[in-house]
Order: sequence, then structure tokens, then C-alpha cells
Amino acid sequence: MVSKAKSKKNLPEALSKLADEVIAAANKGRTPSLDIPVRSLANVRFNETKRYIEMGDAKQAREFFNVNMAKKFMQTLLVAAACRQLEDEGKTTSIRDLFYMIKHRIDGSSENTVDTQDESDVVIEDLEVTASFIREELNLFAENKGAMAGELTLVDSGDTIDARAVGSGGWAIPSIVEEHVIQFKKCTAEFVLLIEKGAVWHRLNQDKFWKKHKCIILHGGGQPPRGVRRLCYRFVNELKLPLYVYVDNDPWGYYIYSVLKQGSINLAFESQRMAVPSARFIGLSSYDPEKFGLDKKSTAIGLDDGDIRRAKEILAYPWFQSKAWQKEINYMLANGVKYELEALTNKSISFVTEEYLPRKIKEKDWLD
Amino acid sequence: MVSKAKSKKNLPEALSKLADEVIAAANKGRTPSLDIPVRSLANVRFNETKRYIEMGDAKQAREFFNVNMAKKFMQTLLVAAACRQLEDEGKTTSIRDLFYMIKHRIDGSSENTVDTQDESDVVIEDLEVTASFIREELNLFAENKGAMAGELTLVDSGDTIDARAVGSGGWAIPSIVEEHVIQFKKCTAEFVLLIEKGAVWHRLNQDKFWKKHKCIILHGGGQPPRGVRRLCYRFVNELKLPLYVYVDNDPWGYYIYSVLKQGSINLAFESQRMAVPSARFIGLSSYDPEKFGLDKKSTAIGLDDGDIRRAKEILAYPWFQSKAWQKEINYMLANGVKYELEALTNKSISFVTEEYLPRKIKEKDWLD
Repeated sequence: MVSKAKSKKNLPEALSKLADEVIAAANKGRTPSLDIPVRSLANVRFNETKRYIEMGDAKQAREFFNVNMAKKFMQTLLVAAACRQLEDEGKTTSIRDLFYMIKHRIDGSSENTVDTQDESDVVIEDLEVTASFIREELNLFAENKGAMAGELTLVDSGDTIDARAVGSGGWAIPSIVEEHVIQFKKCTAEFVLLIEKGAVWHRLNQDKFWKKHKCIILHGGGQPPRGVRRLCYRFVNELKLPLYVYVDNDPWGYYIYSVLKQGSINLAFESQRMAVPSARFIGLSSYDPEKFGLDKKSTAIGLDDGDIRRAKEILAYPWFQSKAWQKEINYMLANGVKYELEALTNKSISFVTEEYLPRKIKEKDWLD
Repeated sequence: MVSKAKSKKNLPEALSKLADEVIAAANKGRTPSLDIPVRSLANVRFNETKRYIEMGDAKQAREFFNVNMAKKFMQTLLVAAACRQLEDEGKTTSIRDLFYMIKHRIDGSSENTVDTQDESDVVIEDLEVTASFIREELNLFAENKGAMAGELTLVDSGDTIDARAVGSGGWAIPSIVEEHVIQFKKCTAEFVLLIEKGAVWHRLNQDKFWKKHKCIILHGGGQPPRGVRRLCYRFVNELKLPLYVYVDNDPWGYYIYSVLKQGSINLAFESQRMAVPSARFIGLSSYDPEKFGLDKKSTAIGLDDGDIRRAKEILAYPWFQSKAWQKEINYMLANGVKYELEALTNKSISFVTEEYLPRKIKEKDWLD
């Protein structure tokens, strides 16, 4: 059982307040309703000062006595009640489990409270923005992915994990990494390196890169899941460590970096708890193949139409408007090729740990 | 760096032998050639005695002086040389990295040694069967997935991992779990429970199911990757623990169980190192919803055409011919519905750990 939070905001209070307002309205003979912040693109903007994507203030009333809203209104209260139950029992559950928790045939009807998980997922997001708790604080988790090793000791649910001694496998990063679950202890790391791919993380771990270069290495198995992003956020904000992102040289690599740094449009609400505006892109840059003498014939992969379209979209994002980034993306488009992290293996097995990353770090050869 | 094996078969010797035969043939003016076991369906059979899928003895000569074979012949030697280099340097690498390791433009031509990873992957499988080493022994790994917790202490690459204290995340299961990497120490477990889904594993871990029921719990994030299968094999064969498999009640759940138990047709060669014929299917059975009073209206999902086709295929497999299994699969087809592991949450959050699994184990309610 997860121990109760010390620093956690008061979830039971927030959820009770929601319910109390509904009851109060009913008692006064008014239409019970909830004010739900609008999660559409129109209510999302890039905050140039904070350097992350955030939501605006627009809200919409969700009313009980409205044929179009009654079902969603009920679902919102069901999800809130389930989250309250999880909190009271000190448990967490997946969003799939939550769907089954609240799914029931409505008495005397042939209607279900929810029919598909899509319905409960949307309501979870509504509740996140309405109650100002991210889903991990609501005790809900996504499938976890990713692993970690390096110069940090932490406590996870009462167990002390010395990430300097987690073997070849590493510590599996859970989906919920909030303070009441994970506490940081002795940190001897000087930076954090987030790696796109598990296979590349494995090479760095096997070469004990984290020991030689005093760092924490972690990966998220492709697009990092929320637990990994949130952990990076905590490393940067609590341990004051710089974060370097190491991804494929392709538009998807740029995008992974961008989501870590500015957050995403779809989940703009969560940027202030997840985005790391100080994150640095350490590679692969479109200029690296020349700089490091990669054999292009053996390692370059032609951009396909999807890559080119995506690169052009990214080129237009407000947060990629610096000269350096425009140069970087345009150079990829001009060359017409992309490179995977594994391409460095064409030089030698440990080229990435012995030459590539040490030189990039030493020369401060990254993009902000 | 991975310490050299004690118990490992001699890989350098086996690879050198391969090369020596090629050189000897060349020196004698004969056509250099390799005898590669045939990996087609025709050379695969279910061994009724051993209860797993195995390869037959058919072999095919791969010759250097044959226009259709020359390139593959060269690729086979390149892969063998790369594996020898990994062994000499005490390193492991992904099959993607291996592709880049051996990819080069052939001097004086416009041909590459390999163009796509498909080519090197096929050759890896050829080398596995020819040299009688599974890929993990050739120092090659797949993307790793899955986590573990429970009543076992192990050593991973020199680090001691007490799986009783691995937090909410767990120990990330590496892709290579051979004896020279992972050694088992103090085991207080009485059985092993392999869970299909990470989210369900998380529930069991949070409820410390492994502590109360003296077991090891692990998951493979869906279809278990090779590392997880190989680890289960070692638990059963070295620690003499029974293995229970806990999967969705659908044809894909049956199939996951089946691959663990009998191996797969595609990788029949590896069954003798991976298959666990004693594995038991603990659920979800098609009879469980009634037995445990599940609300069918809230939890049953209709079988689609793909499910029905797959169930009928599985019904015909030689290793599903027992009366109990025929009854199980036919009952799913007759009901026309399937159930996910998460469906148990409809009863209550910890129904799986407090009622379902304890009763199934107590009543020995499983399928062999």
C-alpha cells in the first residue's frame, strides 16, 4: 500500500467540494452543474515567458438537466467517486481498470454508465483540469515503460533503490512517481540523460557511462510515458540537474524532445507539472554525421513523405523558431536523410559512450 | 562489462570452427559451404513426449560459388564475425545495432553488405541453428520489456537485486538473462506467476501479493519477450518452481500461454531453451465469470471475427487436444464473449489479489 502523502494537495477535499456544489445546487432547486475548463485547441497557447504550452481560462458548464450533457455529468461524478475510493483505500489503478470500476448497467434501463474506455478517458481528462490534479495524483496510471540507472539513491514505496546497483536490467520506472511514492536521497549525479531507445540505454548501462560521467541515464522505450516525463521534471526542479535528450535524428526525435521541453497541445494542462523548458537536445543533430565522420552510405536513411511533412510542421511551431533550430531542421530537409541512434555502431560498438557523447558534452554541442 | 561465462558453452570455438571449415574447403580447392538447418514449417514438429515444438534434422548447404547463395554466405560470415567481436569485447548489442555493425558498401561496387535489417535478422536465426547458440548467447538482444518482484534474491552483472525490495517499479527484466549475467541466490518463493499485463502486475505488486503468497510475480508487457520467457524457463528448471500463467480470457491469452509452454513454430529451434511444458494456465478461464459471479453485462466483450478464427485455429493445435482444453475453448466460442483481466476490477479493486487468485490456487483450479 502506498503511504499517504505528506506534501500532496488535498484530493479528498477537492473531490468533496465538487460533489458539495452539486448537492447545494440540487437543494436550492437549481440545475446541478460543473464548470469544466475547455480542452480544445482554441483554449491552448504557447507561453513565451514560461516557454511551455498552457491552457487558457475558458470554461464550459456541464449541466445535469441537459439531454446532451446528462450522461457525461453522471460519468464525471462516477470517475470522481472512484478516484476518491482509490485515495481512501491507498490504492492506484490503471485507466483500463477504472473503466471497469465504473461500468455498470443503469437500473431499469438497457444503458451502461460507460460503454467504451474512450468515454471514461475523456472524463478523466476533464476531471484533471477541473480539480487541478494530474491523473497520477488521482491515483490513476498508464502502462509503465522505461528503466533507469545511475548516480542516485531513491526510496520507492518504502524500498531503498540504489540506482548505482540495479544490474543490467535497471530499475523499472513506475507510472506514478509523485513525491508520496518516490523520494530522492543521495544524488551524486551532475546531469540527466534521457535516451529515446531501450537498446541504446542498454549500451550506456553496460559501459557504465553513468559512473564515468556522473549522471543518471533513463529511457522511455520510444515516446517517453508520463512517469518518465514526470521523473525528469522532478530531477530538474528538485535536484537542479540539467536534462539532456538523446534521440534519433528524424522528425519524431525532434518531436519527442519537444514534448519533453514544452509539453503537448493535447495535454496542455499538464505542462506546468511535466514540461522541462530547460531541456537540451544533445543529438543526433543533422550536422553530427559530418562532424563525427559517419559513413553516410551505410547509415543514412532517406526521408519519406511522412518525414518531410512532419519536419515542415515542426519547422513552423512557435517553440522551434530559434535560428539554431531552423538551421537544424532545414539541414535535415536539404540533405533528405535521417539517422538512427544505432547508426553510431557503424563506427564501433562503444563509439557512443567513448567518443560521441563525451565530445558533445565537452564541447557543449547541444541545442536549447 | 559482462563477466565471462563459467558455464557457457564455448562460443569462440564454435564460431572459429565454422570459419575453419570455410578456409579448409578453400585451401583444398573445394566450394566453401555451410550446412544450415532448414527453418521451414516442413522441418518443424510437435514432440509428444517432450511436449514442445521442435525442429527436425533437415539441412541445406549454403555455398559460396552459387549466385543465389553468395550474398547470404557472406552475410552469415559477417554476422558470425560480429558476434565473435562482441564475445571478445565482453559486450552485447541489439539486433538493430548488429545490422549497422555489418552494413558497409562493398569495395568497388554499388552494393551494400546488407540493405535492411530483415536480411541480418534472418541470418542471425540461421547462425543460431547452425552454431546451436540462441541469440542471447551470441550476445544479441531484443528490446527488453517487463518487470519482476517477489521472493528471490539474484545477482545481475555483479549487482545484488533483492526482488523483495524493488519498490513500485520493480526490477526491469533485461533481454539477456543467461547464467553468466544473472545468478540466482536466496529463493523463498514457492511458485512463479507470469502476468500478461503490466497494469495487473502493478496491482499485485502494490498489494504485495508475492509476500503473502510466497511467490515471484513478473510480467512481459503483453506477449512476453524472450528475456522473460528464458527467465521463466530458468525459474522452473533451476529453482524447481511451478509456473502459473495469468492471461486475458481471449484467444490471444491462450496463445501467450501456448508459446510459453510449447514454444512457437517460427522459432522452433529455441523451444528446448525456452519452452516450459509444465506451465499451467491459471486464468482467466471461460468458466470463471460464472464461478466468481462477474456481472457479465458490465464485463463481457463480444468475440469479433478475428477472435473466432483464432480460437478455431488454436482448437486444432496438437497441443490443445486435451479434453479440458477443448472444453475451455469451445465454451468461449459457445458464449461468444471474452473477458479481460481488468474485468475483475468490476467486483472490487483488489478482488484479484484477495479472492480470485487465492481461490484458484487453493482449489488447484488450473489447466495443464
